[in-house]
Amino acid sequence: MSITRPLGFRAAAAATGVKRSGRRDLMLLVRDPHPGATPSAAAVFTTNAVVGAPIELGRRWRGRADRPPLRALLVNSGCSNAATGEEGLRDAERTMRATAEALGCAEDEVLPSSTGIIGHRMAMDRIVPRIGALAGALARGPEADAGAAEAILTTDLVPKTAERTVELAGRAVTVAGIAKGSGMIAPRLDSAAWAPPHATMLAFLTTDAALEPGLLQSVLERCAGGSFNRISVDGHPSCSDSAFAIASGLAPPAGRDAARGHDPMPPLRSGSADLEPFERALADVCVELARAIVRDGEGATRTFRVEVRGTPSPDLAERMARAVVDSPLVKCAIHGRDPNWGRIVTAAGNAGVAFAPRETSLSIGGVEVYRAGVPTGADGDGEALRAAMGAGEVDIVLTVGAGTGRAWMIGCDLSGEYVRINADYST
Amino acid sequence: MSITRPLGFRAAAAATGVKRSGRRDLMLLVRDPHPGATPSAAAVFTTNAVVGAPIELGRRWRGRADRPPLRALLVNSGCSNAATGEEGLRDAERTMRATAEALGCAEDEVLPSSTGIIGHRMAMDRIVPRIGALAGALARGPEADAGAAEAILTTDLVPKTAERTVELAGRAVTVAGIAKGSGMIAPRLDSAAWAPPHATMLAFLTTDAALEPGLLQSVLERCAGGSFNRISVDGHPSCSDSAFAIASGLAPPAGRDAARGHDPMPPLRSGSADLEPFERALADVCVELARAIVRDGEGATRTFRVEVRGTPSPDLAERMARAVVDSPLVKCAIHGRDPNWGRIVTAAGNAGVAFAPRETSLSIGGVEVYRAGVPTGADGDGEALRAAMGAGEVDIVLTVGAGTGRAWMIGCDLSGEYVRINADYST
Repeated sequence: MSITRPLGFRAAAAATGVKRSGRRDLMLLVRDPHPGATPSAAAVFTTNAVVGAPIELGRRWRGRADRPPLRALLVNSGCSNAATGEEGLRDAERTMRATAEALGCAEDEVLPSSTGIIGHRMAMDRIVPRIGALAGALARGPEADAGAAEAILTTDLVPKTAERTVELAGRAVTVAGIAKGSGMIAPRLDSAAWAPPHATMLAFLTTDAALEPGLLQSVLERCAGGSFNRISVDGHPSCSDSAFAIASGLAPPAGRDAARGHDPMPPLRSGSADLEPFERALADVCVELARAIVRDGEGATRTFRVEVRGTPSPDLAERMARAVVDSPLVKCAIHGRDPNWGRIVTAAGNAGVAFAPRETSLSIGGVEVYRAGVPTGADGDGEALRAAMGAGEVDIVLTVGAGTGRAWMIGCDLSGEYVRINADYST
Repeated sequence: MSITRPLGFRAAAAATGVKRSGRRDLMLLVRDPHPGATPSAAAVFTTNAVVGAPIELGRRWRGRADRPPLRALLVNSGCSNAATGEEGLRDAERTMRATAEALGCAEDEVLPSSTGIIGHRMAMDRIVPRIGALAGALARGPEADAGAAEAILTTDLVPKTAERTVELAGRAVTVAGIAKGSGMIAPRLDSAAWAPPHATMLAFLTTDAALEPGLLQSVLERCAGGSFNRISVDGHPSCSDSAFAIASGLAPPAGRDAARGHDPMPPLRSGSADLEPFERALADVCVELARAIVRDGEGATRTFRVEVRGTPSPDLAERMARAVVDSPLVKCAIHGRDPNWGRIVTAAGNAGVAFAPRETSLSIGGVEVYRAGVPTGADGDGEALRAAMGAGEVDIVLTVGAGTGRAWMIGCDLSGEYVRINADYST
């Protein structure tokens, strides 16, 4: 159970044949309107200079001061509708219109989201005729959730779902989400305030909390910054990376049977003490989904977490951590459980951030291999270090000075399977 | 024939056992002094924030206004003497001292150069005792050259040599070089003017030209910028990347038998018309060596050249070209001959350079697949495109606007063999 667990949401999925495997590839997520409720919606998009048509439409929606809370998202996998020019934009608009018609809502209450091959037009003849049937099949519950989580996948091996329920403001608030990876993953999701140039991960988050207008956007931006933007499979942000959050405002009073009916939730306000547990729940769901994405990274057999400490600012620490998780030499060493830590230190040295080796220390799985610029020799005996390198998630801490800046990134190993998957993706 | 072909140079190589394979791993290159000659030397080093002890010593030499022209380079492979702290520096100094003693020259006329595993101390007991015998074995000619070219290799499959002879200022000037790759290759060599924070490629260039003091340094910087800095195997500049050029000033008069004896060459001056053919010869040697490095990149089965055109400045074009050659998704597509060009466009989109897709076109092997933001459909039929993707060097041109900025980079494909090589390098 997941995306339709918060009150006020339904979903349906179908196989249109765009995916040659015949698996589900089209998903409709709908928020049902409710008298007196305060719904809201938020989104963050890739900062790649090249974006898909759905991102253009999403940014247009987000840029409107009077944007309506979303009623529906139509999501397809197999084709990203990116690098398709004006015609691709028209295609995306046509799917929005067809969805709005099927649901009986306004066109600007609907957004598309697409993932898959770039530079190919959408198979409109397969998608548009299915929208009516999808709208008719909308449902709540485990089956709808499972179909939705599967329909958004591409090279992913497993569906990714997460869910939290917290009690706040006297309500039992549920936050849920589904996400997909697993290649072209190194999201750098923007904020509404900063929309220029990077993420194809997709994440769809639902909650039955109610929030004041605009509040969900800033909460989502912080949560994405601490989760999706902290992972990298291949260092290549996609033209389609997106995370959406939709809030229905229908959370039931805590301890009461939701099915018995209740008034909508009064919206959480900026500065309210109840906002913090909500943000923590959303952050937890985002981190769980982000970790699931990198664990299911193409060809990945294990993950590694790199924390850089001691820089003048967190930004510099992030640049260094990113340089480490994206180094193919480091990724291969992780794959081979090879304690070749010089690759880690020199990868950090290429981030364009100045630091002094004599103030630099490195530990792997708690085993210090380099202290104040000198090898400790811990890779000599090797027992503890070899165990650390064999962990499901290898833990790397690089300290480069006495600054207060720190940041972490999670990456995955680089395997022969990764090459196999990506050497014949479109063929 | 190569590195000892210019007059005034000798070389010798030995196997010290540092390389477990038992292959040659220590090389001594010597410039013989000559009365009346105007020798000079120049060097460019990695811009990685973490550097090996040899780089520290090389920068110290280069930083001196009164630096002597180098008499000798002692080069070892198998251990980079990097991330080894003060003791590593002492080790490097000890090898310089032993070399100077064996040659009867001053210590500051000798520099070390090292490549291999990071974070391990040099096996001084294997190296120092061999220096005297190496000095005794110094020789000219094919055998000395072949030994030198082999002794500097690590994971390289083939030795790399290049040579040009040009007639200028009435002299027959020879420029020669040897180089090694083949992993941790994405050199960003500095200039003497800009020494902060990246390349382990090593290149050793010799010439019998004579140049005014300081002139060789600026020529080498331009040549390295247009050759070694234009290649990437794995996007990971090493802590040891270095290129040295040494000029003996002993080029013989054109058309005369060098063995008959001659006066040293008068030095080329800044602004002299004879400088240009010299620089072109050195540039040609550097480009030939750089291409040989990327062709012999770890696990590489083919190379690809990415030219970005139309940016406001060459720097921005270089950033975009670098983002493309280093994208693992693009590298896998090249490996699989997969015309998945969306990866190329979106890789460029992640360089942090803004550009408009509608002003963007892409061709692969002369086949235009994307024109003014719209797919041409050329990947549909596929014959010509598939042939282009199968070339030994795939030719990619990305035009992103009307600016005059352009830059090229050469990368190689990512193969399962790359993973195999790097998943158990130190083990």
